[in-house]
Amino acid sequence: MTTEISVAEMRAAHKRTAPFLHNTPIMSSENINEKVGVPVLFKCEHLQKTGSFKVRGALNSAILAKEQEANGVIAHSSGNHGQALAWAAQKIGLPCTIVVPDNAPISKIDGMKEYNAGRESVCAEQAEKLEYYFVNPYDCVSMINGHASIAFEILEQAGDDIDSIFLSVGGGGFASSVAFLIGNLRPDIEVFLVEPEDKQLSNLLANNVPCPVDTLNTMADGVRVAHVGTLCEPILREFCTGKVISVKEEEIKEALKLVWTRLKQRIEPSAALAFAGVLYHKPEHVKRPLVILCGGNVDTNYVID
Amino acid sequence: MTTEISVAEMRAAHKRTAPFLHNTPIMSSENINEKVGVPVLFKCEHLQKTGSFKVRGALNSAILAKEQEANGVIAHSSGNHGQALAWAAQKIGLPCTIVVPDNAPISKIDGMKEYNAGRESVCAEQAEKLEYYFVNPYDCVSMINGHASIAFEILEQAGDDIDSIFLSVGGGGFASSVAFLIGNLRPDIEVFLVEPEDKQLSNLLANNVPCPVDTLNTMADGVRVAHVGTLCEPILREFCTGKVISVKEEEIKEALKLVWTRLKQRIEPSAALAFAGVLYHKPEHVKRPLVILCGGNVDTNYVID
Repeated sequence: MTTEISVAEMRAAHKRTAPFLHNTPIMSSENINEKVGVPVLFKCEHLQKTGSFKVRGALNSAILAKEQEANGVIAHSSGNHGQALAWAAQKIGLPCTIVVPDNAPISKIDGMKEYNAGRESVCAEQAEKLEYYFVNPYDCVSMINGHASIAFEILEQAGDDIDSIFLSVGGGGFASSVAFLIGNLRPDIEVFLVEPEDKQLSNLLANNVPCPVDTLNTMADGVRVAHVGTLCEPILREFCTGKVISVKEEEIKEALKLVWTRLKQRIEPSAALAFAGVLYHKPEHVKRPLVILCGGNVDTNYVID
Repeated sequence: MTTEISVAEMRAAHKRTAPFLHNTPIMSSENINEKVGVPVLFKCEHLQKTGSFKVRGALNSAILAKEQEANGVIAHSSGNHGQALAWAAQKIGLPCTIVVPDNAPISKIDGMKEYNAGRESVCAEQAEKLEYYFVNPYDCVSMINGHASIAFEILEQAGDDIDSIFLSVGGGGFASSVAFLIGNLRPDIEVFLVEPEDKQLSNLLANNVPCPVDTLNTMADGVRVAHVGTLCEPILREFCTGKVISVKEEEIKEALKLVWTRLKQRIEPSAALAFAGVLYHKPEHVKRPLVILCGGNVDTNYVID
């Protein structure tokens, strides 16, 4: 598999995956613009195939695995990554195994660490036995290169209309992908990472102090993993030091309500996280933010309490 | 005010209102296409200003009222019509009064008849006293002419891709507007009216038997009014006799779930009604249906039980 994270590999991944994916639309709301005080653009990635950005990297990974004659792809997941990889593999006709914990609810992961450990060991074993390519959800070159197609789209759709991009950060694969490409092609556009407050990513990037816990207690279930991947960390340190925004749970809730009621978009809490960064903590000098709504896989009767 | 419902007046209304309104997008979902068995297009009118189609007719009415030197516009409403008229009047700088029942919840109307009567008499009195133009939510020429802009948009966006249009019917203003324009310009495209089963509109259109109740007990709160307007009835009889589809509450629920989870669009139950008609009762000969998602004003924590 490709071992290099680079603009050239990102461009190749974009070309490779674009025929199968949506160029997701950008939306806005006058009411939200008034509340924030500046115009806010929303990149609607919850309208992507499988309902999240994960499919960009997953499809890139699956195509490369097939080209290199792997027998299939395998991952552990009970969330968006699993759906994305399963869809991608089916699309290109490659066998796929998703290891899902026995009693895990399909869209929620609690006790992430224990599950992860267990699932990883099973995955690695199975991957070797079957000669399947193991696709890590974020600490994976082909995932990181694949995700960057969203940044190419944003530059084409709104490159002249924005001064910043706000995105939710979890394991850091998506964040490092966007930060790397934008940092190389358009360093005038700032990439802000929005995190649940307990993550303390700025302490890692600036002072090398890791988060003291492994799993965050947050409604944004897509970003509960506390630590960023080892491939992601140096990229985020280079491009996003000083650009981490911490938000409170109450702020995520209010952001989610606004997107549901004003934009009429049924996003998941992890996507509202990025908007909460703009709504409550936008730096004064930011005048034209774009928010990536990263996913929309939320239970039908999810209630904002 | 204009007293004629005609293609020419509809075209003029479209031209008059388009600068202020969204040409709402059309969406689709592969998963939904598979479930229905044919490709389904969704006209996303819940993304319209104020979150519903009502603003098309309301804005046309407000502009005409201003041209004819009314002092303002007035209506009774505790729902989408009130929001739409208030927004339209503000947009063009015209005073507006919305008569809202004292204890009415803002997005739900129960006991429609009593409220309606009460509010109508207050409205008429106030309208005369203030020299305001009274805008009936559906039985109103300027509303009916104004709504037709959505049909012009549909023909431009997807006129060659569809054989039918499915829409939710309540008071009949929107239904008669779309049916009239499509029936005149593109009689090859069928317009189907989807109703909650107790409405029995086909019995009115075919046999002249009115619905025995005034208010329907349905989760689709935007279409609880049982009777269609006197202006609307002859239009619907001419264009839609034999094209009424009755759906059950359980079917509206399932349609709503699918749009929330697959299209990721936060529509209101009244909008899901139209899709339920396609999902459960699509006539065999229909191969390329378009569903109008008429509104998205639903309480934040509305739960599909």
